[in-house]
Amino acid sequence: MSLLSLLLGEKKKTATVAKERLQIILAHERSGRGGTQPDYLPALQRELLAVISKYVRIDSNDLKVHFERQENLEVLEVKIELPEPGPAR
Amino acid sequence: MSLLSLLLGEKKKTATVAKERLQIILAHERSGRGGTQPDYLPALQRELLAVISKYVRIDSNDLKVHFERQENLEVLEVKIELPEPGPAR
Repeated sequence: MSLLSLLLGEKKKTATVAKERLQIILAHERSGRGGTQPDYLPALQRELLAVISKYVRIDSNDLKVHFERQENLEVLEVKIELPEPGPAR
Repeated sequence: MSLLSLLLGEKKKTATVAKERLQIILAHERSGRGGTQPDYLPALQRELLAVISKYVRIDSNDLKVHFERQENLEVLEVKIELPEPGPAR
């Protein structure tokens, strides 16, 4: 299954109302067992959201963050529901 | 299938050598048919990579960018192979 079909499938399940959504996924695969490298995903996530908020208005109520770790793979998923594009002012 | 199992599956297929990898996926779902909103994913991608390069050294040869659009969903995927963590200096 390709990533696009997975996301499309997810979309169809949740998409009761067609909304503008942005999803950011960070997958970090470590090479060694419990590598000694510090875990930078949390800090990276904050900075990425700061960059994204320059492009779209992010309301913290519309933000869902999910973190999972399995074997040497860490996946950070941020889902943002975007406000409806207002009428052109 | 969850996102984590998809990424783990992908990892097992490609992971001949355990390398440090970072994968960033941006999925943008537009609400309307061909929304009038400008397409900000390319610019957003450049800025996200600039942020990430503050955390890890990115060599453009180790960077793979893949973009797909289907229905009202656009998926931008950036795969970065990270240099092996050097010996502690």
